[in-house]
Amino acid sequence: MKYQCIAQDGKARAGLIETDHGVIETPVYMPVGTQGSVKAAQQRELIEMGAEIILGNTYHLYLRPGTDIIEQAGGLHRFMSWAKPILTDSGGFQVFSLTDLRKIEEGGVTFRSHHDGSLHTFTPENVVQIQRQFGSDIMMVFDECTPYPCEFKYAKDSNEMTVRWAERCKTMFEKSSPIYGHSQALFGIVQGSVYPEIREMSSRSLIEMEFDGYAIGGLAVGEPVEEMYRITEFTEKFLPANKPRYLMGIGLPENILESIDRGIDMFDCVIPTRNGRNGMLFTRNGTMNMRNARYKTDFTPVDAECDCYTCRTFTRSYLRHLFIAKEILALQLASIHNLTFFLWLAKEARKKIIEKRFKEWKATMLARLQASVFTEHQTSISQ
Amino acid sequence: MKYQCIAQDGKARAGLIETDHGVIETPVYMPVGTQGSVKAAQQRELIEMGAEIILGNTYHLYLRPGTDIIEQAGGLHRFMSWAKPILTDSGGFQVFSLTDLRKIEEGGVTFRSHHDGSLHTFTPENVVQIQRQFGSDIMMVFDECTPYPCEFKYAKDSNEMTVRWAERCKTMFEKSSPIYGHSQALFGIVQGSVYPEIREMSSRSLIEMEFDGYAIGGLAVGEPVEEMYRITEFTEKFLPANKPRYLMGIGLPENILESIDRGIDMFDCVIPTRNGRNGMLFTRNGTMNMRNARYKTDFTPVDAECDCYTCRTFTRSYLRHLFIAKEILALQLASIHNLTFFLWLAKEARKKIIEKRFKEWKATMLARLQASVFTEHQTSISQ
Repeated sequence: MKYQCIAQDGKARAGLIETDHGVIETPVYMPVGTQGSVKAAQQRELIEMGAEIILGNTYHLYLRPGTDIIEQAGGLHRFMSWAKPILTDSGGFQVFSLTDLRKIEEGGVTFRSHHDGSLHTFTPENVVQIQRQFGSDIMMVFDECTPYPCEFKYAKDSNEMTVRWAERCKTMFEKSSPIYGHSQALFGIVQGSVYPEIREMSSRSLIEMEFDGYAIGGLAVGEPVEEMYRITEFTEKFLPANKPRYLMGIGLPENILESIDRGIDMFDCVIPTRNGRNGMLFTRNGTMNMRNARYKTDFTPVDAECDCYTCRTFTRSYLRHLFIAKEILALQLASIHNLTFFLWLAKEARKKIIEKRFKEWKATMLARLQASVFTEHQTSISQ
Repeated sequence: MKYQCIAQDGKARAGLIETDHGVIETPVYMPVGTQGSVKAAQQRELIEMGAEIILGNTYHLYLRPGTDIIEQAGGLHRFMSWAKPILTDSGGFQVFSLTDLRKIEEGGVTFRSHHDGSLHTFTPENVVQIQRQFGSDIMMVFDECTPYPCEFKYAKDSNEMTVRWAERCKTMFEKSSPIYGHSQALFGIVQGSVYPEIREMSSRSLIEMEFDGYAIGGLAVGEPVEEMYRITEFTEKFLPANKPRYLMGIGLPENILESIDRGIDMFDCVIPTRNGRNGMLFTRNGTMNMRNARYKTDFTPVDAECDCYTCRTFTRSYLRHLFIAKEILALQLASIHNLTFFLWLAKEARKKIIEKRFKEWKATMLARLQASVFTEHQTSISQ
């Protein structure tokens, strides 16, 4: 994997990540395919939308269908018929947030499956091994993602263990080889909750180990958005310019724009698909609740500036009907539109960075994104 | 609407139905878009699969989104962005099967909405009017669909009313005009339960009224399949050769083949989509339960002879995973495959009729369709 920054506007960067499955233009939004499927979206549709890389979740895929089945299929790309890059997380976040029983020790984490209660252990070593078996283009180190709020002492001790785990992941990564003939990269994850001194220590330690990229983890876990921006801004200063930076699990369109402005290159978030399935559509002019009665006879597209299949083909009136009638097509069309919008947002940011007009465009977009959310809420109340 | 029979092999017919939204090649399978959406399938996918006409349900669409909204949209074609032909049923079947309270009188039927309990009335006249507002290419008369079993006396009286209703529909059809500039046809529906003499009376009365096509209704409502074939065969004898024949709500692949062999041209059924969503996939070699453990590491396509997106792209192993993991993509891929299979079956029958090889092909297909269902069931039991 190679990263190259091709343009900068303030802190905002436009770059290229080269992988054996293709080039990723950054900033990039990465659709989330938790269980080997981006919910309600087909692989060919992801290509049509312009997705350049998707995510898979190690915890979910390890439990179901199971690492052995994915390996027998010839890796995750072949299992799910996706020929472009894949990033897999390390399972750390899910182990800490989804499982009931979990025992964290220096060696690793023992946890019970949320499906059947069966006992499993993740260690820095086997998490790298599992991702080798998946064949992801970008693998993530096994980390502890601290919750919010989190006491200083806990965050510090946890991060020290996360750093030791990162080292073990790196060692395992170097000892092992790709299985499927394409190369795999390994990213480190900066932790440290909302404490700058821990974030600094975490960054410095990881950078010494020389990862292929650096993620900022442990944010968007409930802290105020200003804290998130503050920690992102602070952490970014330590990250090397010649490696991509990935802000994990972020976020709303405005969070993505603000984070790009703070030097972040990569984003993943389930918001477009999850909120889409709940009837929330993101547009250049704010969000829409598609179930709103105001769309009953609104025969305009969801977002007139959008060129996705949904906006090219269907009206708000039809989409509202599909949501009210609980048609599966509602989930499909909402996912197509929202994913297209998030992908567009990152691609458009890239263009503006290259044109050195990012700040000005960001300000315009933020104003537009805010404006009509307010209008819709007002209208809803008066109905 | 024009119908032309272009080839015949025994009773089996290959024909053309010309509508203002395009030509339909018969025999034809018509995907069912109950609420203005063929479940889990996109409009562009229906085109890709080779769908030439789809169904809409008057009862459902009248209640939701409502006839007024569809008319404001410019008709059902524009409302749902479907430029090919649409057939709408008359709501009769749903009024009799879905609603709790319903009062059948000579004038029409008063019923309560299954959504909110609100009171509504369907009459032969307003059902034609509603279908004018939908703008369907083929409209159906309002009929009473008798249940099975049904006493002779009830079936006879009911059919006499259905015939009087058909006459009122025809009168209303002639008095009214298309709203959207394209022409609309009206089909009569032969009723009479499993009683040949009523079926004959029904057919003769309707034919005198000169409809654009004739449907056989009141079958596939629980009677033995031999009864269904017997009544279809009997009724067909009375139907004019220069009009299309539509066997409503049929059926399994073998039922479709047997009915084509008895002179039927048009079919609609929710089996491909409904069973597909439950994990049942239809193939040339019988049905598969995609959740079956035998497909865990089966990296072959669902049906190697099928050229649908699902079979071109994904393995049984991946599909099984999607069903087990309850991914929406499972419903989409199963619907795409099953609809493609049913559409293929009717198109292939057409080819064989033109080649005068229908009987021979039907026998081969029936043997194949049966054979491996048995194999899978055996395997399942031994697992």
